[in-house]
Amino acid sequence: MGIRYFEDFHAGDTFDLGSTAPVTAEEIIAFASQFDPQPFHLDAEQAKDSIFGQLVASGWHTTSLLMRLLVDGLINETISMGSPGVDEIRWLRPLRPGDALHARFIVLESIPSKSRPKMGILRSNCELFNQTDELVMTLKGTHFVGRRPE
Amino acid sequence: MGIRYFEDFHAGDTFDLGSTAPVTAEEIIAFASQFDPQPFHLDAEQAKDSIFGQLVASGWHTTSLLMRLLVDGLINETISMGSPGVDEIRWLRPLRPGDALHARFIVLESIPSKSRPKMGILRSNCELFNQTDELVMTLKGTHFVGRRPE
Repeated sequence: MGIRYFEDFHAGDTFDLGSTAPVTAEEIIAFASQFDPQPFHLDAEQAKDSIFGQLVASGWHTTSLLMRLLVDGLINETISMGSPGVDEIRWLRPLRPGDALHARFIVLESIPSKSRPKMGILRSNCELFNQTDELVMTLKGTHFVGRRPE
Repeated sequence: MGIRYFEDFHAGDTFDLGSTAPVTAEEIIAFASQFDPQPFHLDAEQAKDSIFGQLVASGWHTTSLLMRLLVDGLINETISMGSPGVDEIRWLRPLRPGDALHARFIVLESIPSKSRPKMGILRSNCELFNQTDELVMTLKGTHFVGRRPE
């Protein structure tokens, strides 16, 4: 498989992004200590008394793991020109110690840029599942992708 | 200042979330190595030839730093019951080595939950600025917050 350009993406195309190793409690706590130090992300004992009832990962940790799958599985084989943002994130189920994640990328729309002729715009939905195929999160985003040289 | 409940938030209220230390190239590379290994987030030399022209942080690193300001500056003093998701992220300017960030949280809407009488729903906009007061990113999110006991 070679490098992908804007012309290689069409609405409805679905890409398997592969899967992560099981996430450990240590990784959950390390991320939360740096970026999201709420008790239910930091300490299994305190988490028992929380609304989650157990240690769970920061939603931003879950999101960052999805990004890693997306970069390894698709973006680094694509002429990526960055992203202006995200249109929707839904955290549907918590990520718990021992969970392993897998994901897919679905093209919603592909639009040639009017102002930048060397670029196209993709709108996508990413779906992230755990090891029992429960949907953990969805992310709708926008991607700038280089066009195939003439 | 005591603990904040749902009743303490009103549309239009603005909270200063304080500021980060300057972000280092080493921190940018460490985050990207784990979660977003694209060349312009990993290596200053390779980044010179990229669309950014220099090493820049992953948008998810920037987002995670905003979350840290939000947790330290507001959430950990609030009866937080988690978040179902985010409605919009816009990355407006890259985060570069040496940049220090500050943020504010603006309440857009506060809605008592109909189904869960001990909970209210806040919709917010967070604005993240760099040290020269340029707007780096915005994030519109939803928060579940506990109600004040009667």
